[in-house]
Amino acid sequence: MSLMKAAVFVEKNRIVLEDKPIPDVGPLDALVRITTTTLCGTDLHILKGEYPVVPGLIVGHEPVGVIERLGSQVKGFAEGQRVIAGAITPSGHSYACLCGCGAQDGPATRHGFKAAGGWKLGNTIDGCQAEYVRIPDAMANLCAIPDTLSDEQVLMCPDIMSTGFSGAERGEITIGDTVAVFALGPIGLCAVAGARLRGASRIIGIDTVTERLKVARKMGATDVIDFKTADVVEQVLALTDGRGVDVSIEALGTQTTFQWALRTLRPGGRLSSLGVYSQDLNIPLGGFAAGLGDYSIVSTLCPGGKERMRRLMTVVAAGSVDLAPLVTHRFKLDQIEAAYELFAHQRDGVIKVAISP
Amino acid sequence: MSLMKAAVFVEKNRIVLEDKPIPDVGPLDALVRITTTTLCGTDLHILKGEYPVVPGLIVGHEPVGVIERLGSQVKGFAEGQRVIAGAITPSGHSYACLCGCGAQDGPATRHGFKAAGGWKLGNTIDGCQAEYVRIPDAMANLCAIPDTLSDEQVLMCPDIMSTGFSGAERGEITIGDTVAVFALGPIGLCAVAGARLRGASRIIGIDTVTERLKVARKMGATDVIDFKTADVVEQVLALTDGRGVDVSIEALGTQTTFQWALRTLRPGGRLSSLGVYSQDLNIPLGGFAAGLGDYSIVSTLCPGGKERMRRLMTVVAAGSVDLAPLVTHRFKLDQIEAAYELFAHQRDGVIKVAISP
Amino acid sequence: MSLMKAAVFVEKNRIVLEDKPIPDVGPLDALVRITTTTLCGTDLHILKGEYPVVPGLIVGHEPVGVIERLGSQVKGFAEGQRVIAGAITPSGHSYACLCGCGAQDGPATRHGFKAAGGWKLGNTIDGCQAEYVRIPDAMANLCAIPDTLSDEQVLMCPDIMSTGFSGAERGEITIGDTVAVFALGPIGLCAVAGARLRGASRIIGIDTVTERLKVARKMGATDVIDFKTADVVEQVLALTDGRGVDVSIEALGTQTTFQWALRTLRPGGRLSSLGVYSQDLNIPLGGFAAGLGDYSIVSTLCPGGKERMRRLMTVVAAGSVDLAPLVTHRFKLDQIEAAYELFAHQRDGVIKVAISP
Amino acid sequence: MSLMKAAVFVEKNRIVLEDKPIPDVGPLDALVRITTTTLCGTDLHILKGEYPVVPGLIVGHEPVGVIERLGSQVKGFAEGQRVIAGAITPSGHSYACLCGCGAQDGPATRHGFKAAGGWKLGNTIDGCQAEYVRIPDAMANLCAIPDTLSDEQVLMCPDIMSTGFSGAERGEITIGDTVAVFALGPIGLCAVAGARLRGASRIIGIDTVTERLKVARKMGATDVIDFKTADVVEQVLALTDGRGVDVSIEALGTQTTFQWALRTLRPGGRLSSLGVYSQDLNIPLGGFAAGLGDYSIVSTLCPGGKERMRRLMTVVAAGSVDLAPLVTHRFKLDQIEAAYELFAHQRDGVIKVAISP
Repeated sequence: MSLMKAAVFVEKNRIVLEDKPIPDVGPLDALVRITTTTLCGTDLHILKGEYPVVPGLIVGHEPVGVIERLGSQVKGFAEGQRVIAGAITPSGHSYACLCGCGAQDGPATRHGFKAAGGWKLGNTIDGCQAEYVRIPDAMANLCAIPDTLSDEQVLMCPDIMSTGFSGAERGEITIGDTVAVFALGPIGLCAVAGARLRGASRIIGIDTVTERLKVARKMGATDVIDFKTADVVEQVLALTDGRGVDVSIEALGTQTTFQWALRTLRPGGRLSSLGVYSQDLNIPLGGFAAGLGDYSIVSTLCPGGKERMRRLMTVVAAGSVDLAPLVTHRFKLDQIEAAYELFAHQRDGVIKVAISP
Repeated sequence: MSLMKAAVFVEKNRIVLEDKPIPDVGPLDALVRITTTTLCGTDLHILKGEYPVVPGLIVGHEPVGVIERLGSQVKGFAEGQRVIAGAITPSGHSYACLCGCGAQDGPATRHGFKAAGGWKLGNTIDGCQAEYVRIPDAMANLCAIPDTLSDEQVLMCPDIMSTGFSGAERGEITIGDTVAVFALGPIGLCAVAGARLRGASRIIGIDTVTERLKVARKMGATDVIDFKTADVVEQVLALTDGRGVDVSIEALGTQTTFQWALRTLRPGGRLSSLGVYSQDLNIPLGGFAAGLGDYSIVSTLCPGGKERMRRLMTVVAAGSVDLAPLVTHRFKLDQIEAAYELFAHQRDGVIKVAISP
Repeated sequence: MSLMKAAVFVEKNRIVLEDKPIPDVGPLDALVRITTTTLCGTDLHILKGEYPVVPGLIVGHEPVGVIERLGSQVKGFAEGQRVIAGAITPSGHSYACLCGCGAQDGPATRHGFKAAGGWKLGNTIDGCQAEYVRIPDAMANLCAIPDTLSDEQVLMCPDIMSTGFSGAERGEITIGDTVAVFALGPIGLCAVAGARLRGASRIIGIDTVTERLKVARKMGATDVIDFKTADVVEQVLALTDGRGVDVSIEALGTQTTFQWALRTLRPGGRLSSLGVYSQDLNIPLGGFAAGLGDYSIVSTLCPGGKERMRRLMTVVAAGSVDLAPLVTHRFKLDQIEAAYELFAHQRDGVIKVAISP
Repeated sequence: MSLMKAAVFVEKNRIVLEDKPIPDVGPLDALVRITTTTLCGTDLHILKGEYPVVPGLIVGHEPVGVIERLGSQVKGFAEGQRVIAGAITPSGHSYACLCGCGAQDGPATRHGFKAAGGWKLGNTIDGCQAEYVRIPDAMANLCAIPDTLSDEQVLMCPDIMSTGFSGAERGEITIGDTVAVFALGPIGLCAVAGARLRGASRIIGIDTVTERLKVARKMGATDVIDFKTADVVEQVLALTDGRGVDVSIEALGTQTTFQWALRTLRPGGRLSSLGVYSQDLNIPLGGFAAGLGDYSIVSTLCPGGKERMRRLMTVVAAGSVDLAPLVTHRFKLDQIEAAYELFAHQRDGVIKVAISP
């Protein structure tokens, strides 16, 4: 049995590099040799024990690599092809998938859905912070990388670009909208880019880190607010002449940002929630106009599947969005523990790190 | 100055019949002689002081009557015509109206929206529990009653039919959906009827009042749950084979029903909120799948305007829905204080009362 | 090699019962023993040589049966289970499927779509007018029949119910709409039922066959027009007070009905086309308001996949629609040539025939 | 009675500058002193007698100016304010307006719609190629110009920007789409800009005029095709790897471009038609996949109303789109006949002309 290096969740606060067997491949799977991957905020939730996974699991859900071996039933791909797969890997054939809810992919044996059931890599099956990863339902999930694009150019597609853009899409942003994005981590920055791509005229980015406010401007923010030094709700209202925003995007996962997102919304507006929360949320009576305000609150899990990946790579290839500035640091897989250390403490202005085996 | 009888909010817990001047009519208004009107749960909020209006205001927002006088600029109507107007009376020309948010009608002088700003009658201007009412922006709001329909047949159109149906519409119920409606007061019953009209296959009605559970079945509920005697969430899951409902409708305005509505929803489902809340709401972390469940929570204020009224009367005229069973009691305007007394205490199986001057 | 009876397209005007090998089953397939099936108008197009298929093909695309054998990779089903599959069998994993266009299912090896590529049974692979049929991509396509439903109750789900309902769905019919359905064959009748289920108030059915006009009323038509004895456009306008219909559904596939459908539409309305056409269509300048009328013309191929089948069977199980009156004749598979003879000439008031091996 | 200069349609091929009375203002109207206006392709249809208007009518429907006088009932505006109004001036209070079809604005006295009824200026009432224009339903139609924007910067908002963008909007272009725009006159160029604003990755512009192909690139086209030198359908398929485009926009109003738009569309795609046609259209059987291709064909009339104008000016103010390059020539109102001469013959690379009284 061949071995490979892999980042494994051992226990709370310990993700370590270990030797693990190279995965077997079933008839519908593909084995992908990872060439580049990255760390995600969700991996930090796992590291800190805030999001439970079984000890021994290989973490990571943002694979860029090369097809090493294809299952016997997989058609339409070739070994040696450069590919990505989404963080979410819908089966394509569940009831959930067939009604357009692939991220809530349920089991084959039931009529139903499973909350976040489409998120498998580095959650319910071994992930891709490793030399190799097994991609399930490969025909629905692998997507060939255009030759003109480098690994790093497509590295954001599997998760944060898909997630951030979905914030703009589920917010139903339309040409001429005013949008506020609360928190400008990697996902918030992608939400800014997505809002611009959907035609928002005014995009207000809110954070405290100066560097992130700067990157937000590059991504399309027309205004930024440092919430350490300002009353956010007041500022957003001031910037919008008292009107409020058409769409607000919550990209942190806290009660504070959620409330701001609601309180800055005009009646009839949409709050698009991207955060992963760790406690109950409170909807303030006033911010919700006691139920009379025609508000919508929508949450989204990162859309996956190969068509989503193809579409996002099309955006990158067209140069419509340049996410290169988000990769601030690079590590070898051998150094992944150091990468976690840096990323978890947000040292040195880190936004995203690229990991190469 | 001619006088008329009118139900006036005097102070907390006192709505009394008083003499008030018959309203003047501006160029864009119409004066309508009320022939039938009704009381609404929202009027009870006003009565109890839970929803603030200025003392001296005539209450009521569900007008059925005859055009007595038309403003000089009002075209397309004739004096003597039988008409209704919605509880919500959008101007037609505000920014809010022109982007499809008439219920959040803002002032003419601003770019903006005002939460629930389209609700004017019996809220920010005198209402229709009176012999006469002034309808603002008459061209956008009056709708002629087909000759074949009686006052009582169209009495639910201005508010509860429009509101209840909007619960089904904003829930985006589609053919074959499974739906749960939480609380079967007049609005919940109309939501049941609306869910059936949108093609829901399975409609689960939840309340404690036996009579209302019976009426719910008439309106289209396929299953009912008495929540005094059952664990609601468990029961709904049992009825749906563990799957949860596609759409849940909250029709009471309490934390308990709101939470049930969320906890019974399948991932990717929609919670359509119709209740008027009197306190902050709590979103339970689990019911919201920590933000990863692709849930939507949408709230709706009763849609108004003459096209909405026309459409609802079309439904009544077609016999698609029969809301007659909802009118359980009839009073003269002179007896309106007794009507409030009965309605406020939900005595004698009251659902809705008809009031005739 | 075991043999079975099957209806085979031999050449123009000849579909005959022949002995054919019982199909093999690949890893993702299922072999279904047919218990009931039916003939479709499209089969008549094939019979008449108007729609090309390869000689030797087994025809038929409306399978009701029992799982005889499952491919090695198929999970979530059991041999002996009663199932249906849709006329359209999307793979679940193509680019087309993953963007919600399963009926236009493209090849696994390309980024693209193939017009009507999801229609495989009795078109590009052997169909189900036979003792057995191989269902491809079984996990995405088989759907268990509830025990309470008979074969005939679900016999319309695979095609005409799915197609007719899609006419109402793609027409975006909403509560209170006025709808006209042009031609009341099986699909038009299902479109009437679908329009009613979506909440249309007024449904105008148009045909020449008295019996079909009668069945249309049972399905929910509020008005019927015999176009032999009336100017259709004039009549529809008269019935709608000159306003026209909100949605028109074309269910025959001819220029005449297509033009009527457009000319009876109000500005801003939607023409939902279900017909299979055999020649170019003409859009009359006036009926299209020279391009200034905000019209939509949408065409739909029968939606398939197991979630669609589940949903339609839910509607049947709820008793929301009773399509039993559509099955007017019953034949054994041995008599299928006689069934074609009857059906092709629309003898004896035939609407749909049930075929049992 | 004061007189003003105005461009008047006299008879086929004669639009001349005449003295006309300055319009009176009713209670809901505004009198606007024109500071800048322009000529539209539709004006050429009128000039050539292809689109009928009554002789003596003042033409023009793209007003930029200053409020000279307000009707007695108009609130929310002030005399002296700089404003625009849309080419389409919905009343706000018709049935059509209240169901979101303002461009198909019907009469106040009927339940209905009138094809293109919202287009009044220079069509059914006097237009704005004059020193003054009366704007009907001023509260629904006037929109204040931000101080930071010049007349020319907002001159495209009333018609071609609104129309071109609506092509992208009704086409439901979404992030990552591939789009083809057929004909790159002013509206086609705005459609290109709108497609980019909606997030299209690939925008293929098709025309024969080299200069327009160049401007198309500035507006966001990623590829251009000169249809004099290429087989358009073949070229579009080659550029898309045989897949076809997700959305095609017809911006000329001819059978040839309409057919190309359909033939280059992938199954399940949308043809968004902006052209004003002068003859019946033919839908080719193959391009329509005989009705089985899930195609949508949607037509749009320029959306109007003050909210639309506000939103478009927001886009201009944000610098998201720069339409300045479209104004290629400038004339005084006195020279309007020369302007028509130039524009009608598309001399000197003209795209749009600015006219100032």
